[in-house]
Amino acid sequence: MQFAGSHILSIAQFQRHDVERVFQVADRMRPYAHRERVTKVLDGAILGAMFFEPSTRTRVSFGAAFNLLGGEVRETTGFEMSAIAKGESLYDTARVLSGYSDVIAMRHPQEGSVAEFAAASRVPVLNGGDGSNEHPTQALLDLYTIRQELAARGRGIDQLRIAMVGDLRYGRTVHSLCKLLCLFDGVQVMLVSPLELRMPEDIVEQMRAAGLQVEESDALEASIRHVDIVYSTRIQEERFASRQEADLYRGRFRLNQAIYTEHCEPNTVIMHPLPRDSRATARELDEDLNDNPNLAIFRQTDNGMLVRMALFALVLDVVEQVDRHARDVNWYTARRF
Amino acid sequence: MQFAGSHILSIAQFQRHDVERVFQVADRMRPYAHRERVTKVLDGAILGAMFFEPSTRTRVSFGAAFNLLGGEVRETTGFEMSAIAKGESLYDTARVLSGYSDVIAMRHPQEGSVAEFAAASRVPVLNGGDGSNEHPTQALLDLYTIRQELAARGRGIDQLRIAMVGDLRYGRTVHSLCKLLCLFDGVQVMLVSPLELRMPEDIVEQMRAAGLQVEESDALEASIRHVDIVYSTRIQEERFASRQEADLYRGRFRLNQAIYTEHCEPNTVIMHPLPRDSRATARELDEDLNDNPNLAIFRQTDNGMLVRMALFALVLDVVEQVDRHARDVNWYTARRF
Amino acid sequence: MQFAGSHILSIAQFQRHDVERVFQVADRMRPYAHRERVTKVLDGAILGAMFFEPSTRTRVSFGAAFNLLGGEVRETTGFEMSAIAKGESLYDTARVLSGYSDVIAMRHPQEGSVAEFAAASRVPVLNGGDGSNEHPTQALLDLYTIRQELAARGRGIDQLRIAMVGDLRYGRTVHSLCKLLCLFDGVQVMLVSPLELRMPEDIVEQMRAAGLQVEESDALEASIRHVDIVYSTRIQEERFASRQEADLYRGRFRLNQAIYTEHCEPNTVIMHPLPRDSRATARELDEDLNDNPNLAIFRQTDNGMLVRMALFALVLDVVEQVDRHARDVNWYTARRF
Repeated sequence: MQFAGSHILSIAQFQRHDVERVFQVADRMRPYAHRERVTKVLDGAILGAMFFEPSTRTRVSFGAAFNLLGGEVRETTGFEMSAIAKGESLYDTARVLSGYSDVIAMRHPQEGSVAEFAAASRVPVLNGGDGSNEHPTQALLDLYTIRQELAARGRGIDQLRIAMVGDLRYGRTVHSLCKLLCLFDGVQVMLVSPLELRMPEDIVEQMRAAGLQVEESDALEASIRHVDIVYSTRIQEERFASRQEADLYRGRFRLNQAIYTEHCEPNTVIMHPLPRDSRATARELDEDLNDNPNLAIFRQTDNGMLVRMALFALVLDVVEQVDRHARDVNWYTARRF
Repeated sequence: MQFAGSHILSIAQFQRHDVERVFQVADRMRPYAHRERVTKVLDGAILGAMFFEPSTRTRVSFGAAFNLLGGEVRETTGFEMSAIAKGESLYDTARVLSGYSDVIAMRHPQEGSVAEFAAASRVPVLNGGDGSNEHPTQALLDLYTIRQELAARGRGIDQLRIAMVGDLRYGRTVHSLCKLLCLFDGVQVMLVSPLELRMPEDIVEQMRAAGLQVEESDALEASIRHVDIVYSTRIQEERFASRQEADLYRGRFRLNQAIYTEHCEPNTVIMHPLPRDSRATARELDEDLNDNPNLAIFRQTDNGMLVRMALFALVLDVVEQVDRHARDVNWYTARRF
Repeated sequence: MQFAGSHILSIAQFQRHDVERVFQVADRMRPYAHRERVTKVLDGAILGAMFFEPSTRTRVSFGAAFNLLGGEVRETTGFEMSAIAKGESLYDTARVLSGYSDVIAMRHPQEGSVAEFAAASRVPVLNGGDGSNEHPTQALLDLYTIRQELAARGRGIDQLRIAMVGDLRYGRTVHSLCKLLCLFDGVQVMLVSPLELRMPEDIVEQMRAAGLQVEESDALEASIRHVDIVYSTRIQEERFASRQEADLYRGRFRLNQAIYTEHCEPNTVIMHPLPRDSRATARELDEDLNDNPNLAIFRQTDNGMLVRMALFALVLDVVEQVDRHARDVNWYTARRF
């Protein structure tokens, strides 16, 4: 994959070596994201963060990642009612907005809209989520976190054993992660969900075709005994016909410290795409896990910064210049990562 | 006109040599807007983009233009409900907000509000649209585009032949453009609209008094035969009493490639203030014109950046310093302008 | 108080010497806020302006203050519906968002929420208002203004005579100001309000216990004769059960130029937390005071910039570096402060 000038629309664009390239660059971003060093490599560049659907944290994460490289951010939040209501095509919107920035990060509620926009854009577009379709930076940050957590245990992604738990039918993030895992060897995947919320059959097939060992189950405790990672998900209430229907499944699989201690191998990593549902009726990851050092959920969001910085640096072709425009941080920073 | 420290509220402020000054400075902004060079001439300066009415693209365009000069942007979008609802006067709002930035770009739904705000502001204010009253940067970017397109044909604005088509009654942009054209010599204007949506009589009179040759028509094909520019407009549905009334006019004048080829002189330039209405019922500019190199509509929005950069540089009096704070762009940029 | 790395949540954190330290640093910010000098001391740093409740001017003031120190701003406005609606805890929100910036300024409608957020945050948090609880930067900018106005008259805060007028029951800003005044000597406070809107008894007691001389009254004219400052407030309509109830009190105490001339000592300073209610039914400070040089209300908001800059510089521990990263302003600035 040629990164410079490319759109990043789907994880289907990535081969294993592309993923590894992103991760190598992400590693090099750590001193900047962790506020030890400041780089101004993109001083003068502009990111257009075009969020036609609200998403505070994804929007802020993209923007902050660009700021960390020294660039400026212009942004929109919420549907651009005016122009769309006046009958403007996505083609026109893309032609206009792409004249205002050097790169665009875009979220839009319609499937396929980001790719359609990108086709008309005059600058690279990074997909920040298009409906239930793709959210490639989330999948990459998840896999990057898996790699990082396993590396701390002297392991690589190959031979990974992972349990995915919860709403596997509607969870966009687990779908994308499964597809990325197909690029690696010897991976074992345990899918744990209510029968009605099973992983879509085509994704299971795709994994098996790629050589992954896949098992399905509806029992939590038995399924998390021999894995490196438990990847828990939230019931996507907004995807169900009614709140009542969602309530049938909410709280079905709850991991807490007691279950973890009794059933998991030592140092099993706990992940979640966030937000986790902390209401009494849900609690897929109990708050008593907050002090468990293997709870990696906030390292995931921190890693989102590294991955997004890496993609910006690759797409704008400044990877080799980052360190040249750097200096030490001169303000107070606590140890906090 | 003394630009340094001035408010830019109305095109009535501009004499011909003022317009030419803006355009000369806009020309010098091109390498920065086109991402060949980076300037930091306004490094440390702050733009307050105070949009009391949503307008994504005008807001982002002003902000990006300021970023391209090296400045920072603070902004609001939507009505500042809190303070206004609590009975604050525009005077107070202006006194407060003008303490937060070096220059303000403002949009507000009420006619005259921007001028009222400017009178109390302690920093220069650029009018980004006050209701149906004025939107001077749009008029300037339109005329700048006309100048640029004609220059490529070895011509100037004097002796321009232009057809304005569509809703000439409610179209704020064509009103302002007509007024600007009064500053030039030998201009011929063909006004093409339904009878009910004719150009207001006072503007027609103003043009004739200034020596322009003005004709009115309700037939598209005959009117675009001998012009340099066809400036098409959208039916301003939001200005009609009902959607039904707007529907009477929508789609009345449609330009497409076939009509263009049959009726226009070679290389007739096609313009539109955008957004164009691409719904089947409207299509005042058909999408089959998208590959026509004379379709200048996206060059118009690109030129908006140049004109806004020029106004910022003039009002903040840094024109002669721009190149001194410049360097080459160090990231990937495709040819895209 | 150790400022570096601290949260600024409540004025209860401040001792007299802490307040004086903030004010000394604020004084040093004046050339930067008044656009004589530019500093880049926080070049590369990121402020997260997390406003979970709209507040244009407080948000813009924090952001502009950070820009004036050379930093970047990422922000949210309005309730982060998505994540909260999905059941995310404030703990999780804080853990995630604090990974995106070096310091956070936060407003939230719930009392105590900012402190709860801060407890989980990995970076310093500045309280920008949590419901009816605290808004420490407003109290500090008010006291800073008092200090500045009195200094111009050769006086200090000790021995201050101040009248607070209007809605003293619901006015958060006067509550906080009273608490800060407890740190000073020989202060006389005249509380002027309708009986139903008197200052809460516990605050009156706290002032008396601290040695302040406090009187209460419901007559404006008699109460403003022998004071240095008249601090007027708006009826907080939004805090009453009905608009009708608020109307009972609105317009009860009106200060205008005639009353000022007749009853006040020469050069009595007029303050107000803004927005002032300029509707005919309210007018707690008449617009005929706008030309009175003792009307300090816009100096208050300007001073908000200085105080917020000072807090950022203290919390991020760059006070001694500010001047080292400075240069003269190179663009047009009118005398306007």
